[in-house]
Parts: sequence; structure tokens; C-alpha cells
Amino acid sequence: MDISSLTAFDGGDVSAALKNEALPAGFGLYGLRSGISAVEGKKDMALFWSFRPARAAGVFTKNLVAAAPVLLCKERLKKGKSFRGVLINSGCANACTGKRGRDDAEAALKLLGDGMDVPPSQLLMASTGVIGRFLPREKLESGAKALAAAVTANQVSADNAVRAIMTTDTRPKAAVARFVFEGNTFTVWGCAKGAGMIHPDMATMLSVVLTDAGLPAAALQKAVKAAADRSFNRVSVDGDTSTNDSLFLLANGAVKDFAKPPAKFLALFQSALQQVSLSLASQIASDGEGATRTAWIFVQGAKTEAAAQKLAATVATSPLFKTALHGADPNWGRVLAALGRAGVPFDPDKAEVRFGDVVVCDRGMKTDYDEKALHELIKKDRVVVRVDLRQGKAWSFSVTCDFSKDYVTINADYTT
Amino acid sequence: MDISSLTAFDGGDVSAALKNEALPAGFGLYGLRSGISAVEGKKDMALFWSFRPARAAGVFTKNLVAAAPVLLCKERLKKGKSFRGVLINSGCANACTGKRGRDDAEAALKLLGDGMDVPPSQLLMASTGVIGRFLPREKLESGAKALAAAVTANQVSADNAVRAIMTTDTRPKAAVARFVFEGNTFTVWGCAKGAGMIHPDMATMLSVVLTDAGLPAAALQKAVKAAADRSFNRVSVDGDTSTNDSLFLLANGAVKDFAKPPAKFLALFQSALQQVSLSLASQIASDGEGATRTAWIFVQGAKTEAAAQKLAATVATSPLFKTALHGADPNWGRVLAALGRAGVPFDPDKAEVRFGDVVVCDRGMKTDYDEKALHELIKKDRVVVRVDLRQGKAWSFSVTCDFSKDYVTINADYTT
Repeated sequence: MDISSLTAFDGGDVSAALKNEALPAGFGLYGLRSGISAVEGKKDMALFWSFRPARAAGVFTKNLVAAAPVLLCKERLKKGKSFRGVLINSGCANACTGKRGRDDAEAALKLLGDGMDVPPSQLLMASTGVIGRFLPREKLESGAKALAAAVTANQVSADNAVRAIMTTDTRPKAAVARFVFEGNTFTVWGCAKGAGMIHPDMATMLSVVLTDAGLPAAALQKAVKAAADRSFNRVSVDGDTSTNDSLFLLANGAVKDFAKPPAKFLALFQSALQQVSLSLASQIASDGEGATRTAWIFVQGAKTEAAAQKLAATVATSPLFKTALHGADPNWGRVLAALGRAGVPFDPDKAEVRFGDVVVCDRGMKTDYDEKALHELIKKDRVVVRVDLRQGKAWSFSVTCDFSKDYVTINADYTT
Repeated sequence: MDISSLTAFDGGDVSAALKNEALPAGFGLYGLRSGISAVEGKKDMALFWSFRPARAAGVFTKNLVAAAPVLLCKERLKKGKSFRGVLINSGCANACTGKRGRDDAEAALKLLGDGMDVPPSQLLMASTGVIGRFLPREKLESGAKALAAAVTANQVSADNAVRAIMTTDTRPKAAVARFVFEGNTFTVWGCAKGAGMIHPDMATMLSVVLTDAGLPAAALQKAVKAAADRSFNRVSVDGDTSTNDSLFLLANGAVKDFAKPPAKFLALFQSALQQVSLSLASQIASDGEGATRTAWIFVQGAKTEAAAQKLAATVATSPLFKTALHGADPNWGRVLAALGRAGVPFDPDKAEVRFGDVVVCDRGMKTDYDEKALHELIKKDRVVVRVDLRQGKAWSFSVTCDFSKDYVTINADYTT
């Protein structure tokens, strides 16, 4: 593979994906304001509803300090076979809230279940916001009731739901992909909120992906794990997760249900899921708190994909690289220094580094490039950094955004 | 041990340590401007000279991308038995400069050696500044000559030398400790430059420690390693080092030389060395780029010191914690979230977190504290965060500074 072929991924047409027509068959989305969020007028509760029983899978934070809804969902996904919806609130993470936090989450799902006439065990939940505060029970419960009423009144609004899960996101994030198999058109639709920096340590990442294909739970779990590894986990360092990170995949089979999906169908489904996940991850990156541009770090010529991934992620999370990116400063020395401390053996005297198509470092040494031209190149919205280790054939990538003064402003007074 | 007894370390009287009288016997320090630094008028070359043969030890960056002077010094310390001086330049890191970088360093040391009539193999070197640029050979050589002349002319100035190694440091960093053994007073003196954030990833950390005690090289190496582990490495994550980090320890035995140092002498020496190292590390932390306050993170009740250290360092390097610190925001949820992703097993439902003496989180849950009073407490120059895991008896600490808008400003345009 030629390193020049590795390039940034386009987030896709978000506004089209936010329209109700983009949704997979058999799903309804609803969003409203319950008052949990302190931001005046902001919608803060959403329901992702399947009109027929769906199978579900999920990927959750690896943080030891996991929020109440995360613990709840992990249990329900392990036990349950059939699911109907995901309830999400923003404005309060319901993390570090002990038994009371758990009770709050269960009470909201019970009210919602009662309103919809389904057992609460078929409902899932996620929360995002400040850690260490209790959910305001009354607002939560009246919100859950209102969402049940919205389903009955058919007030479907993908846009409302996607906006309701946002926290410090400046824009809604959604993506859709379709594929045809044996004459049927299947839809994979997803939305996400990223809030903080693209590094999930920085804030909660929530995502709900819905499809009208029907697959067994085990196949769903395998698919969502694989997709997350090459999308959301590429805007992160392994294990570096918040208390609330959750990714749900619901498959309701409204178009067709496969008890034993054929290999070709699985491949098409995985590809669509991958496309949606990567688009959402890319949208999260470019809307990082205070972000003015994104950088895609490609590392190729590595011995293994895991090694390439670790190197790319180390560059992507280096505050020195991220501040240089903010200043559109072609400081490739910081790229090399970050690679050197990643804990992956390689020979710096063989490495090549490019900004865009410009080789700035060859065999560990500075090349004769035009610094001003490079400065202009990095001023763009999306910067591509390509590293070739020249030791193998594996490659990977990581996506990051710049570290700006606005990031500091946003995060210095988050709770006060 | 009671968690309340763990507190921040005082940097000590720096101005006293910068006076020539503070220096150990038999050492001369010199600093001048050669023009290598782009900052007008700034001194940029320093010589740390021993008037008699000294033994030397060092701790260097673990980064695979190590600067030319680091590679040179590692070789010389391995081969050589006797050393006379350390030459340091600021303004150019001489990293990613290949064979030419190595030649530049050797040429400067040769000129210095010629001027002082000592073999160049007895001279060591360190550089700090921008990565990926060549040292301007003429300026470097004229600087080396001028330093040799300064020794001959007896222009000793600890202050000049310490200022000459600074880059983005806003103030010089020095510390001194003395101890008496069998009627003799021994001095351990050190200086450092930290430049970037206290996390050595952020910028080069250089330190030179001098003593008029005499110890075998093996004892020196052991001592400097142990001291670094509990000082400089407590403002860092293991292995997270720049291309140029170097810590030198020179012992010239001007007061007394021990071929086989008694255990009591070794203990006194180690204690003095530890005090100097910790003072310098603390000064580096509080002068982090753009820093307005420091935080000392103590983790106790751990199973091992290494586990406590990993937890403390994870909090200390979390951008979310560092920005909250900047806003004096008592966001202890971010402390807990960072602990949870450190990769060290512990039970969040047993943990206690304190800001100063105020318990903010007990058994994983928020306590009933006064948020405004806490905000005032964190507004101070030094904030102490204490975590008790309640699972064992080991403890450790990490020191960090806040993440400010000035940090972004300083680092966004470093090379341009």
C-alpha cells in the first residue's frame, strides 16, 4: 500500500441522516426537555424505540468506576433476549451515585415500561453529564412519562432525539448507510454524542445504532465490537474511557430476520455498520471541545496492526502535538517524540513522516521543506499525518482534534 | 499513616541556592550567550565544571528517539571513569539530527577540552530546545571557547549557568542540601530546567546535581536512580519522556572521598540527594508552562507503591482534571474517573477522596460538602488531593500543574 492513499474520512451528509425518512423501518425516535439539564430550554431526554421486539448488543466503558445505567444495561443485555428501547438523559451522568443511582434508573425505566405496556427488563438506559450528582427523580419520571406519551402521539423526531443526548457538542451527529441483499434494502442508522475531546477520557461518548435487519444476538455483539474497534476506539487509547461510555446496537428485523445470516449478508452488514461507526467517530473528532481542526494520524509499515494503533494513538493524545496542531505549527519533532515513547520498538533512523503529501522527516532527519507552505497546509480543517516505519506491512490510524484555549475554558468551570 | 499527614513539599529557598557560596567545593559554574537561542539577549550555554576529576552517573530519557548528546553521554558514562564537566546549550535540542548532530556535539566538546587541557572523553553534554534542527556550528564552537575562557578568568556564576539552561521556564530552579558526617560538612547542590508541563513528555527536563562528597560510580548510579524515581519520575508517567531528558550527578570528593562509603554516610547522602531532587521536581511542577497552581495527588491505602504511583500519575496527567484545577473546580468525579481507567484494580465503592482536608467522596459517593468553600480552597497556589483506596498500606504521590489557556498559547506556535 502507498502511504499517500491513506486519507481522512468524510463525516457524510449529517442533515440527511437527521431526517425521519432516514430511520430504519420499525423504529421511532423522540426527544424532549425534562429539566434535568441546567442549560435553559435544552432537550435532555430521548427515547430510541422499536415498534417490534429487537435483539440488542452493546459495548461499554472499561472504567472501574462505571455509572449506574452502564451496570444495569450490562446485566440486562446478558439476561434478556428481546429489547424495545433505549432511554437516554443528558445533564447528569448518574455516576458515583451508589444504590440510589441504580434505583433512579430502574424507576424511570419502570414508568416508561408501564406507559408502553412492555416489561422494564426490555428497556435500556444511558446517562451523560456531571459525575457525582443524583438524577432529579421527579423530572426524570415526568420525562419518562412524556416520552411514552410522545410514542403514543406519534411525535417521531430523529432530530429531537439526537439533540437531546448532546452535552457540550456544538452540533448533532448522525449517519446512515444502506445495502441491498437478495432484493431487500436494509438500513443501518446511528447517532452519537461526543461532548469532550475525541479522546473518550475527556467526556462520555454515547452512540445508538439501529437497523431493520434481523440478526442473532451473538452475531450483533461480534459485529458491534468489531465496528467499535476500528472506529470509536480509533479516537481513543485502549481502556481510556469515561464512566458512562455506551454504544448500543438494536436490530429489529423489520425488513427481514435471519436466524442464520449468510456470510455475504454478514459482510454487507458489517461494512454498513463500519461506515456508520466511522462517520460518527469522525464527527465526534471534528466537534471536540474547542476544536478548530482535526488530524488523522496514519501509521503504516508496522509489524502488527496493534503496534501501528498504539503509535498513532500516542501521537493523537499528545498535548504537545495537539497544541502545535492548534497553531498550525508543522512541529514534526513532537510527532517523532510521541512515537518514541509509545512503548513500541521501531528504528527512528528508518522512519518517514509526512504532513499531507510533504515529507518532513526522512530516515529520522529533517528534509528540506518549505516551512511557510507547510504552515498553510496545516491551517486546513483536516490535517493528515502519515508515518511510515518501514518495518512491516500493518497499518492503523487515530483521529484527534487540536487543543485550544476554548477547550480550557469549557473544562475549567464545568461543574461550577 | 493518616492521610492528613501527606502534604505538598516546599520548593525551598531558591535565591540562596543560586548564589556561588551555595556551590559544593571544587566546582565552578559559568553561563553566557552564544546566539544559539532565538530569544534576544538570552544566555544559552552553560558549563558545570569540576576543578578536580569527578565520578559521574546519569539517568536519561527512555524515548527511542534520543537526541545526539543523550546517545553520546550514555556511551561516555559507560566507558569513562573520570569526568570534569557538563556542557549544556538551550535553544536547539540537537534531536533527529543524525550523524551531523553527533559530530556537532563532539566538536563542541573537543574545543572545550582543548581549551581546558582535558581529554574530550571526560566531558558530557546536554541540549534542549526545538527538535529536528541542526546546532549552528559556529555559534556552538565560539560559545564552547568562551566558556573555557570564562573558567580561566574565574567568572564563576551559578546564576548565569542556571539561567542559560532555561527555555520556556519563567524562573531559575536550584536547591541545596548539606549534611555532616564524622565532622565534615558535605554539600549536594542541584539545578534544573523544566520548560514544559511537569509531565516530561511536554518538554525536556534537564538537571545537574553536584556534590563534594566522593563515592564510587556504582554507588552514585544507584543513588541517582533511586532519587529520580521518587522525585522527577513523580512528575511523570513511566517511560513518558522527551528526546533529551537528562539528569547528571557529579561527585568530586573535594571534601572527602570514600572508596567504600559507610552505610550511615550513604543514608545521609541519599537523603540530601532526595531532598534536592524533590525540591527541583516541585519547582518544575509549579513553573509548568502557563501554570497558575500545582496539585499534589497522594494515593494511599494501596496494595503496592507501584499501584499507588500509577493511580496518582493517571490523575496528574488527566487533561480533564488539569483544566478543572485551572478553574478551581472541585470536580472530584474527574479524579475518580481517572483512577478508574488507570488499569489498577480497586473497589470504587470503598474509596475516599479529599480536597485538602475536606472529604468530597466517601465509599464512592458524594458527601455533603460546601461547594463554594471548596472552590476557595482550590483557588490556592498548591492544592492537595488525597485518595484512600482502603485496600493496603502502600502509598505514593504525583505532582502536576493546571492546564491553562497560556499553555495552549505557549505551545501552539513554538517553532513558527
